[in-house]
Amino acid sequence: MTADDLVSLRRDLHRKPEPAWREFYTTARIVDELESRLGDDLAALHVGPDAIAGDHRMAVPDDADLTHWYEQARNAGVDEATLERLEGGYTGAVAVLERGEGPTVGLRVDIDGLPRRESDDAVHQPVAEGFRSEHDGAMHACGHDAHATIGIGVLERIVESDFAGTLKVFFQPAEEVVGGGKSMAESEHIRDVDALLAVHIGLDHPTGEIVAGIDGFLAVSHLEAEFTGESAHAGGHPEQGRNAVQAMATAVQNLYGIPRHNDGATRVNAGVVEGGSAANVIPDEASIVAEVRGETTELMEYMKRRSRQVLRSAAEMHDCEVSIETGAEAPSATSDGDLVSIVADAASDTAGVDRVLERDELGGSEDATFLMKEVQERGGVACYVGVGTDHPGGHHTATFDVDEASIGHGIDVLAGAIERVGRSAN
Amino acid sequence: MTADDLVSLRRDLHRKPEPAWREFYTTARIVDELESRLGDDLAALHVGPDAIAGDHRMAVPDDADLTHWYEQARNAGVDEATLERLEGGYTGAVAVLERGEGPTVGLRVDIDGLPRRESDDAVHQPVAEGFRSEHDGAMHACGHDAHATIGIGVLERIVESDFAGTLKVFFQPAEEVVGGGKSMAESEHIRDVDALLAVHIGLDHPTGEIVAGIDGFLAVSHLEAEFTGESAHAGGHPEQGRNAVQAMATAVQNLYGIPRHNDGATRVNAGVVEGGSAANVIPDEASIVAEVRGETTELMEYMKRRSRQVLRSAAEMHDCEVSIETGAEAPSATSDGDLVSIVADAASDTAGVDRVLERDELGGSEDATFLMKEVQERGGVACYVGVGTDHPGGHHTATFDVDEASIGHGIDVLAGAIERVGRSAN
Amino acid sequence: MTADDLVSLRRDLHRKPEPAWREFYTTARIVDELESRLGDDLAALHVGPDAIAGDHRMAVPDDADLTHWYEQARNAGVDEATLERLEGGYTGAVAVLERGEGPTVGLRVDIDGLPRRESDDAVHQPVAEGFRSEHDGAMHACGHDAHATIGIGVLERIVESDFAGTLKVFFQPAEEVVGGGKSMAESEHIRDVDALLAVHIGLDHPTGEIVAGIDGFLAVSHLEAEFTGESAHAGGHPEQGRNAVQAMATAVQNLYGIPRHNDGATRVNAGVVEGGSAANVIPDEASIVAEVRGETTELMEYMKRRSRQVLRSAAEMHDCEVSIETGAEAPSATSDGDLVSIVADAASDTAGVDRVLERDELGGSEDATFLMKEVQERGGVACYVGVGTDHPGGHHTATFDVDEASIGHGIDVLAGAIERVGRSAN
Amino acid sequence: MTADDLVSLRRDLHRKPEPAWREFYTTARIVDELESRLGDDLAALHVGPDAIAGDHRMAVPDDADLTHWYEQARNAGVDEATLERLEGGYTGAVAVLERGEGPTVGLRVDIDGLPRRESDDAVHQPVAEGFRSEHDGAMHACGHDAHATIGIGVLERIVESDFAGTLKVFFQPAEEVVGGGKSMAESEHIRDVDALLAVHIGLDHPTGEIVAGIDGFLAVSHLEAEFTGESAHAGGHPEQGRNAVQAMATAVQNLYGIPRHNDGATRVNAGVVEGGSAANVIPDEASIVAEVRGETTELMEYMKRRSRQVLRSAAEMHDCEVSIETGAEAPSATSDGDLVSIVADAASDTAGVDRVLERDELGGSEDATFLMKEVQERGGVACYVGVGTDHPGGHHTATFDVDEASIGHGIDVLAGAIERVGRSAN
Repeated sequence: MTADDLVSLRRDLHRKPEPAWREFYTTARIVDELESRLGDDLAALHVGPDAIAGDHRMAVPDDADLTHWYEQARNAGVDEATLERLEGGYTGAVAVLERGEGPTVGLRVDIDGLPRRESDDAVHQPVAEGFRSEHDGAMHACGHDAHATIGIGVLERIVESDFAGTLKVFFQPAEEVVGGGKSMAESEHIRDVDALLAVHIGLDHPTGEIVAGIDGFLAVSHLEAEFTGESAHAGGHPEQGRNAVQAMATAVQNLYGIPRHNDGATRVNAGVVEGGSAANVIPDEASIVAEVRGETTELMEYMKRRSRQVLRSAAEMHDCEVSIETGAEAPSATSDGDLVSIVADAASDTAGVDRVLERDELGGSEDATFLMKEVQERGGVACYVGVGTDHPGGHHTATFDVDEASIGHGIDVLAGAIERVGRSAN
Repeated sequence: MTADDLVSLRRDLHRKPEPAWREFYTTARIVDELESRLGDDLAALHVGPDAIAGDHRMAVPDDADLTHWYEQARNAGVDEATLERLEGGYTGAVAVLERGEGPTVGLRVDIDGLPRRESDDAVHQPVAEGFRSEHDGAMHACGHDAHATIGIGVLERIVESDFAGTLKVFFQPAEEVVGGGKSMAESEHIRDVDALLAVHIGLDHPTGEIVAGIDGFLAVSHLEAEFTGESAHAGGHPEQGRNAVQAMATAVQNLYGIPRHNDGATRVNAGVVEGGSAANVIPDEASIVAEVRGETTELMEYMKRRSRQVLRSAAEMHDCEVSIETGAEAPSATSDGDLVSIVADAASDTAGVDRVLERDELGGSEDATFLMKEVQERGGVACYVGVGTDHPGGHHTATFDVDEASIGHGIDVLAGAIERVGRSAN
Repeated sequence: MTADDLVSLRRDLHRKPEPAWREFYTTARIVDELESRLGDDLAALHVGPDAIAGDHRMAVPDDADLTHWYEQARNAGVDEATLERLEGGYTGAVAVLERGEGPTVGLRVDIDGLPRRESDDAVHQPVAEGFRSEHDGAMHACGHDAHATIGIGVLERIVESDFAGTLKVFFQPAEEVVGGGKSMAESEHIRDVDALLAVHIGLDHPTGEIVAGIDGFLAVSHLEAEFTGESAHAGGHPEQGRNAVQAMATAVQNLYGIPRHNDGATRVNAGVVEGGSAANVIPDEASIVAEVRGETTELMEYMKRRSRQVLRSAAEMHDCEVSIETGAEAPSATSDGDLVSIVADAASDTAGVDRVLERDELGGSEDATFLMKEVQERGGVACYVGVGTDHPGGHHTATFDVDEASIGHGIDVLAGAIERVGRSAN
Repeated sequence: MTADDLVSLRRDLHRKPEPAWREFYTTARIVDELESRLGDDLAALHVGPDAIAGDHRMAVPDDADLTHWYEQARNAGVDEATLERLEGGYTGAVAVLERGEGPTVGLRVDIDGLPRRESDDAVHQPVAEGFRSEHDGAMHACGHDAHATIGIGVLERIVESDFAGTLKVFFQPAEEVVGGGKSMAESEHIRDVDALLAVHIGLDHPTGEIVAGIDGFLAVSHLEAEFTGESAHAGGHPEQGRNAVQAMATAVQNLYGIPRHNDGATRVNAGVVEGGSAANVIPDEASIVAEVRGETTELMEYMKRRSRQVLRSAAEMHDCEVSIETGAEAPSATSDGDLVSIVADAASDTAGVDRVLERDELGGSEDATFLMKEVQERGGVACYVGVGTDHPGGHHTATFDVDEASIGHGIDVLAGAIERVGRSAN
């Protein structure tokens, strides 16, 4: 695969961003690409329900939503047979190369997009170059299109190398909702992995910079609150209503006001809210989809406990009921020093890389931590690698984009590290 | 038309509630009913764009929404020719009877439903009797199905009477969004009306009770606020966001806290709110659809002014922008004493009516006031009549329903009043 | 007493405003004035604990506060013997004239000031004329200095008249906190009153206007909430605090947001709040002194119930405790038609009165209603009279002042009405 | 001085806690103690205006407050001559020992109390042992009574030692309001200090534990916001008010909701709030005394900027004005490694110390940083030492107390470090 190929693939994925568990086109395209490029070199290619532990999926959308995206993928013209295996939101894939005796190395890349509208500003590269998202409410605003591309590129590179051992690349769905990591960590494929690499592009590091080992993952938990009150005519009998939107607004204000904690960083976000049905009806329903994070699991639990109290009291205050569901969660994790050194070494040897940082803090969350912990608990090592890229807009914003040169850097560094792991084991 | 006919018609309309400007099935069904029942007795039947001043429509939904409801009406099997005249949200009709020399009397009935889900409780009459709304997010929760039925019933009754003069029945769309009254008040059809009657069922009065003249209409104005901030990764860079949901929540809390006013009743409701795109993204967009009311136009203006201040300051506080659009508005109005007396007299003669109140306060809003004021400013008289009905749930709630016996009371009282107006003019 | 005397007396009282239950100087000055002016004409002069039912006092301040004002009055040089009778906050007086056979007429005037700073603007009349409040945190901002003066003026006038019957003037303390009315209504002095007049100056009516009978008293209730949390070092361990100020702020926001009510006017005010001890300590204490009102007692109860819910839930939300005490309350009341007519008649005969309104709504609260209801329940009649006065600032504001010409109008109208009551009984 | 002496002195100071700039008794007592204990050994004793740069005092209370505490100190029976030098809030002292050739070492201890009520629980040691605060609204809740005692103990110890050089002990006022550090940093006394030690007791470290070098000082800034609205009768004309308490409550809610920051820890606290004058008056005044902090000066500036925006917008929202004054501020600072090693060494040699931590984070603020930075900018070194003590309640809480054994540890460690600095310079 040439660099042009990679850019072209990345742009195709960028054009068709699919949010969590709806990566139908994306998965099918990856499968297609792997089969055509690697063919018999692949020892196995696990797809959809065979790639993940389906019971451990978290934050799966409802059927109507799944169907909408499924049909859209079908209309985009992907392989029907592959698509059918993904039905019901069983997306993702695991590709396996067996290259003789040696350690089993895992590489985890995530593949989902975000539910947000991409900028249509003429200076936004995807607009200028014609690969802006075709789906109005969805966007690859975190670079997972590049991640998927890197995963394929690494497989190709290892086939050509003298790596001895087994390589498994995990194309993981649903990272953005912290929903997919656990289902891959619970699958059988992770169990024999001796060394796991995970990768993220950007993270405020410029093109040419590599962070060998990222730490500082925030533990995260999702909360979904549904407030139920009672409707009434807003003009005629406001006093007969039990206003779910007032409860929700009170909760939002106080969620952001949960005290900061001395033990470390915490986060809270009321990311999606809605309520009410008409201007002249006292709202009887409202909802908040929120997430809380903590530098440690304890801090995340602190935020969760206080959030639940805020939600419950806000409901009571306005004579409403509230149901609170705890959604997807992810733990914290750390990168192992030995593996970090190997990655740093590989990075130092990579053309185009002009700065290698041994360590940095993510300050965000990642459900790659599920896989990292699983490997570590079984005696293996894990490392989360940062690949710098110049990105005009911040992560998760409408003008996010990657410098495509960094895709090559990622492939070089990761393939280099994988080869070194193979060598170091002998 | 028999009483059974009327009940059957009302139930058919109830089954197919259509919100403002989307009364495609409803209008077509009314037109069909009028043509088949009254045929040549009708001097004119103005439909859709001929019935209203299209430029004065307020709160018209977007094209996608209009199309959805239009197609749904087509699928329900209404007359295509009628339907085509309504395309683009030009709904409503004006039926005219010319019965010789005499005054021109207007009767205004509204025909739209509300965007809310009807109860599916087995004890809810429409469920028990099989005429619950077929449209999941829409419901006749304010009795406009009965109003439309009364309008048709009155026309039939007057045909059979010795009324001398002209009767115009205004089947008005989009009352619930205060969007249709003005377009009928600005049409040519209202200009020669000498006496206008408007009617509402229920209003917490039981079956058998008639309110001859309702006053106390709250002036109303709709406000739509769109907050725009900036998204950011909620875990990685919360400080880079400008949080539109925080702005919205602050606004909601403070909208409800606008000081009460010594000059009379005021109202405010943040009826529909939404914001954000994903749990892990600082929300860059949020919106509030609100309404304010006042016992007088001045009080409504007071609420509007303070609301705008709250919305603007809430945006600034969170470093967001806000655009505020003032939507539909309706003035206040009063019922004229002479016409009230005539209605009271007619009510006293109506079988099944056991209590006649001369006056009562609505305490809500109504865009019938546009038509009332238009008639009054041209020297005519107007009166808003309340027809009691036992309703299990409050107006605008999921369990609202009418006692169908009151449909007959409404027809009797209004037809009786119209005949009396005819006689009194001679 | 000449008009100049009256003005001079009113100005002296204005200079020394004393809030509820601390009217030590005021009461002593009134007593002194009555004794020197009326002397033996007085059948009785009940002072302090003899004038009121002490057990029924509401909203009495703490001892330190009482002592402060008591000492201040002593330093101002009032009669020590009188002062001692008032110790502990037993203020007020009842003066009795017995003028032969006839009805017993009561006149109630209130005498307390407000705890607010008076304007020091040079155009403010009390500044310009040198009688601005000498007490920095207190002010006669509602005209009770004029009321007390009118009470004395009426007594003098009746002594000179041919009124036959008994006149009792109730100089009532603690109206502003709704704390004194009940203690006078429960005293023995009210029990034989056949006709009770109460009076208020201003109320947005200009000089020369008299309202014969005021209605529309809002029922009122005071609430005192004390939030208790837990302090912590705001920098070191914010998470260990339980923040009483956050609870209080949440409560304030939501108190003002209690839904308006269709049955009539409601009010809520968080009039005095405080909390916390130092910038670097998470506040463990906060308080709200609030009042709620309703056009009817039921509406007041509705506001009280919702307020308590808001206060409780706000505390829970922030892991605090809250104690809520219901303070002073007053009911609603109405003016009797016969007595209103008599007052209107007297007003029509009064020089300087150029407009007499039969009725108006107060739209506020008044604990005169306790006395009015007591008299009415015993078979008597009651009437609340408004005496117009040009007032530059609104009631309870720093620039409130009265047009002293209206003091004479008040005396004339009330004395005239009292004489008419005497005559009408014969 | 024996250990008993020290305990007795500390308890006397504990009994008479004086908040910032009101340490009249405390300063006079320290001066008295120094003179009687050290007498001619003191090379100099700078008191009050001679000890500080008076123009750089921050957060000085008003005259009435100063006078109150001044008179209270006088009544407690301190030396009048000393007291007079402190008049107007010029408190604090600098004691100087000159012990021959050698470096100039500074030791900074703070001496002020907090404006909060001490626990009266029988199990609280100061209650049980009879040295609870005699001032109801003030308390030594952060151990500065122990700090002052340690300062005196170190001076005595050094007199007895063979230390060669100069020792200056800075008895600093007004640390709790971040108000005194700057005035000592700007005085001439700091300019020749080569090595500065500062000390704090407790900080969640148990008795027997020493932290040789504390870092992680949060930069801090105080904000005082005064909201001005317009009062109105809360029952009669709520709409005429401009409610300063609503503005304040909105601000409080949103201050705590300022987004967390990825660059490090931030803090915000609305520590003291008040507003309004009476339950029945719409509040025209309200205030917030707040503080913001940040792990760096930039983070503190971020919090300050967002706080100001919140305060301004909250005022505008409720049609109020707001004046915002930035009060006392302190920068961040770090402990120098060489000095940290010296302290660690001294601690290791101290009886009763069973654990020495090289470093820890304060996570709070301290205006010792002014002195530390001043010394460091002039080429000297500085170190902030933590002396563990079992404290039953948290810092700034009503049950805070120290284990008096740790006073001895503090003296030993600091004197030991000072001697080592003397030796290391030779």
